[in-house]
Order: sequence, then structure tokens, then C-alpha cells
Amino acid sequence: MASKLTSSPNSLLLQNPNRHHLLKPNSYTTTFSNFATQNKPSSIRCAATSTAPVSPIPATQDPEERVFNFAAGPATLPANVLKKAQAELYNWRGSGMSVMEMSHRGKEFLSIIQKAEADLRALLDIPEDYAVLFLQGGATTQFAMIPLNLCKPDDPVDYVVTGSWGDKAFKEAQKFCMPKVIWSGKSEKYTNIPAFESLEQNPDAKYLHICTNETIHGVEFNDYPTPKNGILVADMSSNFCSKPVDVSKFGLIYAGAQKNVGPSGVTIVIIKKDLIGNAQEITPVMLDYKIHAENNSLYNTPPCYGIYMCGLVFEDLLAQGGLTEVEKKNKKKAELIYNAIDESNGFYRCPVEKSVRSLMNVPFTLEKSDLEAEFIKEAAKEKMVQLKGHRSVGGMRASIYNAMPLAGVEKLVAFMKDFQAKHA
Amino acid sequence: MASKLTSSPNSLLLQNPNRHHLLKPNSYTTTFSNFATQNKPSSIRCAATSTAPVSPIPATQDPEERVFNFAAGPATLPANVLKKAQAELYNWRGSGMSVMEMSHRGKEFLSIIQKAEADLRALLDIPEDYAVLFLQGGATTQFAMIPLNLCKPDDPVDYVVTGSWGDKAFKEAQKFCMPKVIWSGKSEKYTNIPAFESLEQNPDAKYLHICTNETIHGVEFNDYPTPKNGILVADMSSNFCSKPVDVSKFGLIYAGAQKNVGPSGVTIVIIKKDLIGNAQEITPVMLDYKIHAENNSLYNTPPCYGIYMCGLVFEDLLAQGGLTEVEKKNKKKAELIYNAIDESNGFYRCPVEKSVRSLMNVPFTLEKSDLEAEFIKEAAKEKMVQLKGHRSVGGMRASIYNAMPLAGVEKLVAFMKDFQAKHA
Repeated sequence: MASKLTSSPNSLLLQNPNRHHLLKPNSYTTTFSNFATQNKPSSIRCAATSTAPVSPIPATQDPEERVFNFAAGPATLPANVLKKAQAELYNWRGSGMSVMEMSHRGKEFLSIIQKAEADLRALLDIPEDYAVLFLQGGATTQFAMIPLNLCKPDDPVDYVVTGSWGDKAFKEAQKFCMPKVIWSGKSEKYTNIPAFESLEQNPDAKYLHICTNETIHGVEFNDYPTPKNGILVADMSSNFCSKPVDVSKFGLIYAGAQKNVGPSGVTIVIIKKDLIGNAQEITPVMLDYKIHAENNSLYNTPPCYGIYMCGLVFEDLLAQGGLTEVEKKNKKKAELIYNAIDESNGFYRCPVEKSVRSLMNVPFTLEKSDLEAEFIKEAAKEKMVQLKGHRSVGGMRASIYNAMPLAGVEKLVAFMKDFQAKHA
Repeated sequence: MASKLTSSPNSLLLQNPNRHHLLKPNSYTTTFSNFATQNKPSSIRCAATSTAPVSPIPATQDPEERVFNFAAGPATLPANVLKKAQAELYNWRGSGMSVMEMSHRGKEFLSIIQKAEADLRALLDIPEDYAVLFLQGGATTQFAMIPLNLCKPDDPVDYVVTGSWGDKAFKEAQKFCMPKVIWSGKSEKYTNIPAFESLEQNPDAKYLHICTNETIHGVEFNDYPTPKNGILVADMSSNFCSKPVDVSKFGLIYAGAQKNVGPSGVTIVIIKKDLIGNAQEITPVMLDYKIHAENNSLYNTPPCYGIYMCGLVFEDLLAQGGLTEVEKKNKKKAELIYNAIDESNGFYRCPVEKSVRSLMNVPFTLEKSDLEAEFIKEAAKEKMVQLKGHRSVGGMRASIYNAMPLAGVEKLVAFMKDFQAKHA
């Protein structure tokens, strides 16, 4: 099948359309029209570094280089972190190899993962009696791993369901313990969070599960309920490291990295050490916290490059002054968009109860819903992309994680006002 | 804790040693003496691209830039692939974003994963009735996922154990079905492979499991046994895409990417479609092949950047002329080292039976074992690193995957002869 391919150096760049026959994929160059004006022939020249000085200053203001990417995750990363990763991708700090090539048991990679953990501990002020684990499989794997490790099959546990992710976590837990939804926002389309004193917790529940920020619905906890029994478990995937958190209130915190702290493929678990070591017998070894804790996340080969990227982000967050400073920026950005919505006289609408609106994911609709497609299309022309709402909700969604620059939010708000003026 | 950190752009580069107090990690710069001569201050300048022309020609011959990395995995990657990844890390082909920032449901990433799959199908000539899945969790997760998906708890299955990885796979399967080791090389320290006709297979076994290349012991199957009943399942982690394979002989092939085809964090599964859909009830959703096959590996967020890197490697393997050409190169490299061992009059020894010696991992010892530490140290001085054997075996191990250039093997062989001349 490969017999007609040449072995010349340039053939790396050739795309044989026949190779696609098995899948008939959409061709990026022919179908992704929003980017058509930017499309250049693929090239192996280091364009980004040869046309601009490499510096730690974010290059996002240069419209020729970056779009403002409002995707819900994987999501925009800090421009300076990407530049640093690019500079050292081929040869990490004189080691003669890429981070992607390093033995996970070699001193170089050990220095990377240990620094990443130390910096995360500093950022969140994680107490010593908590383990920090770098795992794989996303929050979806945690949905099973948590009951498998914290429960016996007959144990009751409580779930507060404030959105689709909490609902998925509950459903998966049904395989491994006796979970109960003690509150659901579904009938109100997941637009609020209950008063904690109204929660009818099971006094025997092994844990109380919440999702601190529902990515799809834009609902975020500002404070946390206290479990009547057992521990508080939180899916923080989409607001992890976006603000300070008192880790000691939780038994277990978990987060996919691909929102605020890195690329996809890394899952971070912060777990109180005394909860480790009681996995059910049917637990696959890779889903047992004990094996990962005992081996400092190196039982098998971890997702090394992703961990390295998370480490660069942690370093950057510390350099910004830590999570107190980061939260200030996030509040300012969110306020700008919510104000634009609330001051639009109903042209834009956010369905979420004001007191629990997310600082990370801002869902909104247009009063004239037939204009939504045009809104998204026009925004993309101005290099603001991924603004379409989740397919289950519709409308628009602006995800404005830590790495979204203020300039991106300001540009979006200006665009929103302009769009309203044209169509009001 | 972060209050003393400044927020100046340069602070990203500062390493505050106090930040390490929780872990007391080894400092890379102070303890990794083998690399001391190469250590330069960390810098965000794009040194690799500014000091050398960016071209698809491997830069490995430049001793200032690359070491020869004989690690068993994560392992050396093609230099031209790394250069290409570096060039487009910050801005992928004019999209205005890094691959790490792309929504996994966006057209850009879909084009990447679909091309990766199409190229892998071309490389291995994968029949249409097989699904290709890009998963997480490494081979270790497959050790559980395979019996969970292919067996009921009472089903018998057969394992041929030719090394440590096959043994681990067997042990994990004990949780989910009734596996039996029908042959083990343990008593002979895993140095050979049985005659297939001598295998006493269970006529009711749902599958026969082999590990086609044992990374630690350097034992490789050249041909494959035929299961009496059921299907053949193979862990190909460490020789995946190193030579042509008749996929139709197997029901399921799996491989961690981090040897021959990419960075760690991606696991590739090739599975006959009619085997999908029978997972046990206790199977976590992320361990069910059905959910991944139905969603084209996009049920949850996949390890996007790792898949992208695998795609670049597949493209490169096709450009080399496909796996027939790749196998020729691998045979030539392996022959050079094995000849050096066999012609050393016993100075070097390889314990593995000649007919099943691995083309990928070459374990060897010194007759004078007290010289082994010096061998490894002297080799590192000449920029040949990660030659220490696995802790369970000792001695040396040269892993010479696809991406190890012939020049690296030639240099090692010359070093071996020189070392012998000095110490014979």
C-alpha cells in the first residue's frame, strides 16, 4: 500500500488523497472555511519563531498569529507557556532530547514531575496529608474510580447534580455503589445551585459529590456544602486553579487538565491519604489510587509531555502572583461579559441564576435566536472562535479560562455591542 | 505561599528553590552529572531553530544538539518529526492556535485524528472490519480492558508468558476471567519462545494472549501461534509499526505509543469489530471498547497532542516507504549490535536464544560484570544515554526503535569495540 510513496525528505509534506479512502475524512483545507483566509501551505519552517522575536510576552495581541479561542476544553493556553514549550521542544534545556523522549524514570523527567507537584502544592496550599496524583483517562475515568476506591458495593453515596457532568458521574457510580441524587437542577435546565441547608443528605453516605463548575451550563459553586457523613468529593475539571480553594474541606478533588492547566490527557487527583488503600476487588490496577500513590504517579508510563505542560502552567500561575491574583483577573473578565448581557435590554440572555454564574463558562442566547448562527460566523471572521454553545444547550458559550487574555474578552464585548447595534 | 513571587515576565524562568521544600526533589542541574557539560541556563530563546536550519533532515548527527537515546520508552523520536512539531507548536498551519488548544470536536482536530487513523490503516494494511481506537492508560489498562470486554467471569483464556509484561497481563486478567499460563519462560529467565505445536491450549479458551516483544528481556516473536479456539490477542507495545504484520491473524492488537510511534499517554487498539459490545457489567465506561468505537475515540476528550504526534510519525513511516523498508533498517541496526556481541569472544553476552532475539531491545551483559557501571558512564560521556538494563535484569540494554538512527547504532558498536580493546 505504501509502495508508491517516495522516500525523499519532502515526501513528508505530501498528502496523498488516496490514503484517506478508508475514512473519507473532511479535508481541513477544503472544508474549514472560517480559516480559509489564513490557510498557508503546510511548512516545516519554524515560522512562528523566525518571524517574531521569541519572548515571554504574550503574542495574543498580534492578530496575524493568534485567534481568541473560546473553546470549552481543550482550551486556550498561555501564549508565553506555548512559546517556552516551543523553544525547548526539540532539546530540553541542553539535555539533548525532547521531553517527549525522556525515560519517565530518568532524572530529567523526575525533576519535571516533582517540580510540577511542588508548584501545584504551593498554588493550592495543599496539606501534607494529601497525595497529588497525575493520572490518565479524564474525569470520566474518575466517575468510576471514585466509588471503586471509596465504597463497597452496598455503600450509599449522595450526588448533587447541577449539570450534565454531575449527572454522568452519578450514572457511572451506579455500577459500583448505591448512589442517590439528593438534588437535581435538571427540571430548571441546570441554572442554579441549591441552598445547602435544604439538602437531604443520607446520614450514612460515604461521600457527597459535587461538580464545582458545570462546563456546559455555566453554573459554579462559590461555597461548598458540608457532608453530614463521610467526605466531600469534587469534580473541579473546569475551574481547577482558577481561584484559591481550601483543599482541607475536601476528601478528594479531581480535574481534567484541559481547561485551565494543560493539554488533554492528564487528570489530576488530590486525595486525602487516609482514603487510599480500600479499593474493591474488581478494581483494575490502573484505577486503584493506592498503586499510583505508592509509585508517585510512576507505576506505569505517565503522560509525560502533558505533565510537563501542566508544570509550565503552574509556574506561570505562580509568576502571576498565585491564585488570588488569578481570581481577580477572572472576575474582571467575567463581569465584562455578564454586564454586556445584562445591559443589553434582553438582546442577549444568560439563563443562569446570577449568584451562581460561572467565571469560566458564560452561556448566552440571543432574543432573536435566528441570528445566533450569524453571530458565531461574524465573530469567527474577527478571529474569535469556538463560541457555539454545547449541542445540548444551543446558543453561544464563551469559555474564558485563566489563559483567555483580558483583550480577548474586551474584543468579544465590543463585538457583542456592535452586533446588537446592527441588529437591535 | 506565592506572595514573594514577582509577576515580571522574567520570573517565569526563575526557580525558587524554596518551592521544592515539600518534595525535596533532586535538582536536575545539580545531580544529573552526566549532562553537566551540556547544561546551559534555561532560556526561552528558540535556540534549536535559530542555530540550525530547520529542515526535514535528521539533525542527530550534530553532537551539539542531540544525544543518542537508547531508552526503552518513552524513547527517541524521529528528529524531523520533532522539528516539524516544534515549528507548528505555537500556531498549527495558520489556525491561530496550538494543537494543544484545539477543541477535540473542531474540524481542525478531526482532520488530525482522521488522518492519523487513515495513515495507520495504510501502514499496517488494516482490514475494514477492524476498528482503530486511540485510548489512554497504556498497556496496563488493556490488561484489564481485554478480559472485561472479551470474557465472562468464568471464561477460560490462555496466556503464553515470555517476559515480565506477559506476566503482568496474566495477573491482571485473574480479576476478570479464568486465565491460565500455558507456557512460561520464567525458569529460563525469559530467554526464549516455545515451539507453537507444543502449546497445550485450552480448547475452550476465549483468547490466546501473547506479548510480541518483551521490552525488558529482548525476546520477540517472528511468527505467531494460531489459537485452537477464540482469537489471538497481542501486546505489541514495543514492536508496533517496526515491521509489517498481518493484522487479520489477530482479534486484538494493542500498543502503548511511547516506543515506536509517539509520546506516552496514547494507547492504540486495533480490534475486530465483531468482538465489540460484550463488556461485563462491572466495566467502567472508559474501559468499554464499544463506547470508544461508537464515538470514533471521541467519547470524552482524547489525548489530542499525543495523537497528533503519532500522526506525524505515521506520516514519516509512510514517507520512508512503509513498514517493509522500516523493517530492513531495523534488521540492519540489530544485526550490527548482535554481531558485535557474538564476535566479542564472550566479552559481551546476550542471554537470549538467537532465533528470537528482539530487533528493538538488545539486552547484554559484560563477562566482567564489575565493568558494567563504567561502560554506562563512559557511553554517557560520549552522548549515548539510557543504556542501563532494567532493574530486574541488570547489565545493559540498547533499545533501538524505528527512530534510532543507524549512526547511533554504529557509534555504539564502535564504542563497544573500543571499550573491549581497553578492557579485554
